[in-house]
Amino acid sequence: MSDLSTWPAAIRAAHRRIAPHIHRTPVLTSSRIDALVGAELWFKCENFQKVGAFKARGAFNAVLSLSEAAAAAGVVTHSSGNHAAALALAARTRGITAHIVMPQTASAAKKAAVAAYGGQITYCAPTLEAREATAAAIALETGAVMIHPYDNDAVIAGQATAAVELIETVKGLDVVACPVGGGGLASGTGLATRWLEPAARMVGTEPAGADDAWRSLQAGALTAAARIDTIADGLRAMIAPRTFALIQACVDEVLTVSDAAIVEAMRLIWTSLKIIVEPSAAVPLAALIEHRAEIAGRRVGVILTGGNVDLDQLPW
Amino acid sequence: MSDLSTWPAAIRAAHRRIAPHIHRTPVLTSSRIDALVGAELWFKCENFQKVGAFKARGAFNAVLSLSEAAAAAGVVTHSSGNHAAALALAARTRGITAHIVMPQTASAAKKAAVAAYGGQITYCAPTLEAREATAAAIALETGAVMIHPYDNDAVIAGQATAAVELIETVKGLDVVACPVGGGGLASGTGLATRWLEPAARMVGTEPAGADDAWRSLQAGALTAAARIDTIADGLRAMIAPRTFALIQACVDEVLTVSDAAIVEAMRLIWTSLKIIVEPSAAVPLAALIEHRAEIAGRRVGVILTGGNVDLDQLPW
Repeated sequence: MSDLSTWPAAIRAAHRRIAPHIHRTPVLTSSRIDALVGAELWFKCENFQKVGAFKARGAFNAVLSLSEAAAAAGVVTHSSGNHAAALALAARTRGITAHIVMPQTASAAKKAAVAAYGGQITYCAPTLEAREATAAAIALETGAVMIHPYDNDAVIAGQATAAVELIETVKGLDVVACPVGGGGLASGTGLATRWLEPAARMVGTEPAGADDAWRSLQAGALTAAARIDTIADGLRAMIAPRTFALIQACVDEVLTVSDAAIVEAMRLIWTSLKIIVEPSAAVPLAALIEHRAEIAGRRVGVILTGGNVDLDQLPW
Repeated sequence: MSDLSTWPAAIRAAHRRIAPHIHRTPVLTSSRIDALVGAELWFKCENFQKVGAFKARGAFNAVLSLSEAAAAAGVVTHSSGNHAAALALAARTRGITAHIVMPQTASAAKKAAVAAYGGQITYCAPTLEAREATAAAIALETGAVMIHPYDNDAVIAGQATAAVELIETVKGLDVVACPVGGGGLASGTGLATRWLEPAARMVGTEPAGADDAWRSLQAGALTAAARIDTIADGLRAMIAPRTFALIQACVDEVLTVSDAAIVEAMRLIWTSLKIIVEPSAAVPLAALIEHRAEIAGRRVGVILTGGNVDLDQLPW
């Protein structure tokens, strides 16, 4: 959908479609964090979402948007993270099969999560090429529909609904901030913000060790990160042409932060809000702390993207 | 107040008095935990309370109940935990001084928390005798009113308001469960349950390594634990004659659990509810898991007492 005017209807339809299946997650605040940042922050808690991450929104919208004929043979994706669990749950809810291609090297916790939601796991070698080839072979063999984690309009429209709820709940936001991984959430959040709170500044945030969105915006063309090296494992993916175009259209700026700042922000969320978020979810707060002079006194909405962490592998 | 009939009015008054100063905390559920226990559990999230624990309720009620004359010289307590922070905040809110007696050996985090809420800290030797003597000397010298963490009717009435909110929010509970430390929360929760949901079974839970309430109920007389050895640092205190009498009157049974079960329940809460609770708060869930055969299919309310943990000293 290159015509941006068609997105509001698509996002509204997505929200209606997925509402029976997702949580309308709470928005929390912390006077301690507000005092530290010098602004009013509202945190949209997608760590409380089904499967523990906003990914449930996009996956449900994609699965529920399929025609009966298209859905019959199931869906397939290659992901070892939250999208895989989300797609498995969405498919099970619709009563169809989800084929999940995962690298053999994925953690036991991730394998167990996908299996718990009923996903049919196929293991492959731990390279992007192997994952894509295996998923393509499954699609060809079974007729399953590929549901890409972010390079997919229905997924983007689903992810947009988190910002819709945030903006409906907190009126008059001056800034909306979210992480940028493959760009599905950033695209959706940007679209929702342009539509519902057009005066707000839309800020994408990403780890310095996965700064493809920042580089791409600087270069004006899709550009890979120099290296992928970050604790924020949900944000290592590279943006796609589709999400890059939407980010160019709807995101005012992308800020990058160090892993040390991400870990510090994660601890601050755990200790102040008393909630569990994964490192990727702490990236916007890390950026807001670093750039607090620019948002002094402003009303800032932050999407906390997920809460799936391995308690035996905490970064401190 | 040995006449139980006077408590409902005292608890109602406490709730009105503290309502402007405390959070009405949310009640969360987890389908994963429900499936594991085989019952419907509702978690009253006092980890989201002011100062990160239910102790704010009792401290605010005690401080706000004082006459102007009594309050003028401030308040004093000996505690290194959540009650100290709560009393400091309540006193600051009323504009009076809180003298907090802490052992020199208290963690830097606890000292910092009390100081951040404006408490005037006096350090003493790390023995109960030294703490009591130091607090008594301060009371004598300054005229400050001693606010005991649990051996105090106003504190008990304040702690009862957590269960009041839980019972108002979740109708028809069959069981209400909370931890037992010094017995202030257990007394208040028992009183609220007898009053508002009299058919419900009121279950106190404590660590096997601090089982003074269990032993006291068995013996029919106040009895110390054989040893104090538990990770649940909020529950090491011994019940007082006042709280023991209320527990005998209002608590149906006390269950004890091992530290291993407490840590497992704590992890389950962190990973399923995506919230931070301290070990003491996980004790009821540990007991419910162990006794799940007895609560199959029941509606169970659980008070999650607090969320103050040292992220550098996690028990796994």
